[in-house]
Amino acid sequence: MNPTTFLPMLTRVLDEVNQISLPGPGFTRPSYSNEESRAHECIAGICEALGLKIRCDSAGNLFARLPGRDPSLPAVHIGSHLDTVGQGGAYDGTAGVAAAVALAAWFVERGQPPQADLIVTVTRAEESVWFPVSYAGSRMALGRLHPEELEARRRDTGRTLAEHMREQGFDPDAIRGLTPLRKGRFVEVHIEQGPVLSAAGDTFALVTGIRGGLRYRTAQIHGAWAHSGAAPRAARADSVFAFADLVTALDSDWAETLARGDDLAVTFGIVDAASPVHAMAKVPGELGFCLDLRSDDKAILERTDAKLAIRIAGIEAQRPGIQFALGPQSHSMPVQLSAVLLEGLRQAALALYRPLPEMLSGGGHDAAAFAAAGWDAAMLFVRNEHGSHNPDEAMHPQDLAEAVAVLAHWLDHKQDGN
Amino acid sequence: MNPTTFLPMLTRVLDEVNQISLPGPGFTRPSYSNEESRAHECIAGICEALGLKIRCDSAGNLFARLPGRDPSLPAVHIGSHLDTVGQGGAYDGTAGVAAAVALAAWFVERGQPPQADLIVTVTRAEESVWFPVSYAGSRMALGRLHPEELEARRRDTGRTLAEHMREQGFDPDAIRGLTPLRKGRFVEVHIEQGPVLSAAGDTFALVTGIRGGLRYRTAQIHGAWAHSGAAPRAARADSVFAFADLVTALDSDWAETLARGDDLAVTFGIVDAASPVHAMAKVPGELGFCLDLRSDDKAILERTDAKLAIRIAGIEAQRPGIQFALGPQSHSMPVQLSAVLLEGLRQAALALYRPLPEMLSGGGHDAAAFAAAGWDAAMLFVRNEHGSHNPDEAMHPQDLAEAVAVLAHWLDHKQDGN
Repeated sequence: MNPTTFLPMLTRVLDEVNQISLPGPGFTRPSYSNEESRAHECIAGICEALGLKIRCDSAGNLFARLPGRDPSLPAVHIGSHLDTVGQGGAYDGTAGVAAAVALAAWFVERGQPPQADLIVTVTRAEESVWFPVSYAGSRMALGRLHPEELEARRRDTGRTLAEHMREQGFDPDAIRGLTPLRKGRFVEVHIEQGPVLSAAGDTFALVTGIRGGLRYRTAQIHGAWAHSGAAPRAARADSVFAFADLVTALDSDWAETLARGDDLAVTFGIVDAASPVHAMAKVPGELGFCLDLRSDDKAILERTDAKLAIRIAGIEAQRPGIQFALGPQSHSMPVQLSAVLLEGLRQAALALYRPLPEMLSGGGHDAAAFAAAGWDAAMLFVRNEHGSHNPDEAMHPQDLAEAVAVLAHWLDHKQDGN
Repeated sequence: MNPTTFLPMLTRVLDEVNQISLPGPGFTRPSYSNEESRAHECIAGICEALGLKIRCDSAGNLFARLPGRDPSLPAVHIGSHLDTVGQGGAYDGTAGVAAAVALAAWFVERGQPPQADLIVTVTRAEESVWFPVSYAGSRMALGRLHPEELEARRRDTGRTLAEHMREQGFDPDAIRGLTPLRKGRFVEVHIEQGPVLSAAGDTFALVTGIRGGLRYRTAQIHGAWAHSGAAPRAARADSVFAFADLVTALDSDWAETLARGDDLAVTFGIVDAASPVHAMAKVPGELGFCLDLRSDDKAILERTDAKLAIRIAGIEAQRPGIQFALGPQSHSMPVQLSAVLLEGLRQAALALYRPLPEMLSGGGHDAAAFAAAGWDAAMLFVRNEHGSHNPDEAMHPQDLAEAVAVLAHWLDHKQDGN
């Protein structure tokens, strides 16, 4: 099987979807925006032309079915999402959708269907930067979104998930009664979001698990406003100095955790002491920040969170007048991917090429929502430069085609244990 | 002399000026805004009604003259400014203008003029939070603004000082040819911007000097954007961690400087890692900040600046991929106020009340611009709670009236050495 066979459809999908974006550097298709909807329509159009049976659920997720040879096998959903972060890249999400469409096109063109039903699956609202909700689209499809999460507000517009869904023609009220997807299998191809494959010279890898996260999205430090030249050092409650204390403390806790061989990542993605009230000549009385902790081990996340509370108490004791308010915590569990699917993909890769490297996913993905719902789920990571969530994501379609070929081989052959 | 004599005019000026503000908490009268202009018109109206001779220069500074008994004496300019920071307080600047108007009113009402000409002086654009220019109005009056400073842009509108001046009906092109104010004496009453007088139980004090400042208003840290879950610690160039390194390093340098008995204040008034590109799930590749260093000693400012460069080089060496760009530096020299005026005011206070406490000003003031121009300049600080540059400034008009009485006594008597 020649991977270049898949290239024309892969590049077509990537090109057509990425023509849809808000202006600005990179690509911006917010969750439940006109841009996300237009990208979904683009995929629906291609799949319809291939003769696939299109279905769109009340949440706007898209399913395009190619019936398989053996109706007794659970369907294989293959796909990803088309929304992006603000000024994101060309491949995060879109590469996985392109892979699914190229697979369906290959089976259609060949005239012989895959073993099991192949369902091109395009989810909604995967990028939780817009609404503070993880995997909103997948979880609605799976009947696992809590109704109150529909009231989460989009960070930039201030309007709720339900409102934005309605605006795009979907029906949040139907979510309660929605029949969950019939349990199948879910496979997601995604760009690697770090530099590991590129540094090792590998083109793609199997993903064995997905790190979990513990997040404070709306943390605040309250101090006291004062004049920058007139407030004596001892009388200050400076929110920026308190924040710096916390960052340097967590930096050293993080280094220690890694030195013990445990897995952890610590990121303060947003730091805001730049409101209209802040000024060069004012001691900053307020600072807002986001904290994102990730690990493959729930216990490490909990231990780091406990350490965070101790660090904060120490800073508050050292700096009278400073008070931290971390606000609501959100979290996602670390996820083990399906051993059975992984073994099948391992064998397909061996049959076609070579043993594949295996790695953890640092970022969350729709596959985590499917795994949490009890599905067998698997992922492949494709080499990518410059990380993700930025305009400089750089994936070679040829690398993606190699990964797709492994899936095509797997879908075409007897899937042991399934 | 009963200080309560001054209270009606003091409270009238404070009340009328503070009815003029943009909406929002506190008081907002940006430099060269409609609000600043309306506040100037309010003072001009009151002074005109008192029979003072009004003059407005090409920069919009207001001068209202009450002729004195001895035309051979240099005029005494008394005043301050009416612009505020965003969401500032009721007294910063306005208290000094109220003091000047109340003094003029008292002499007019009494029917016997002061020794020297008394010129109520209301400057423009003292709060450098709007335009990155120190004492813009005073320095234009004194013929000491560099023409290129007219091109400085207002932080919120992005338009130049010259454009905003024109919009308010003034003539930036005339600044080059403007005849500087004839050298006189300048006295400014101002709220204390720190907690010192309040803590000591003093109502007002003599100011002996004004701290100088060294500022970076547009500093940037450049790192690398990455996915918060997927970029290994060693591969990150996180601008927020680099910033925290700098803050904690300067915090310890600051403590050491004070421990040596030297004067220093360190403030990062604005920290911005909250652009549309920043997100919870992204390692922040960029951070912007302001740094404000203040001291009564130029050598300490220079030494701290040199230390800053060493700290930055150390952080860049420790964190590959991180680069600091401090951007343009601005500075103001520490200022000694006039020994002769101070002695006159000391004697007036002794004659009326008691020996006055004496202190440094941490913030810059128009008096610094007059002193830098070779004028004899003096300042009085009035007790104030909650610092300045915030909606909670809290000065008792009775305390201001006590300070005004000292000035009235001084203006009314032979001014030794002048």
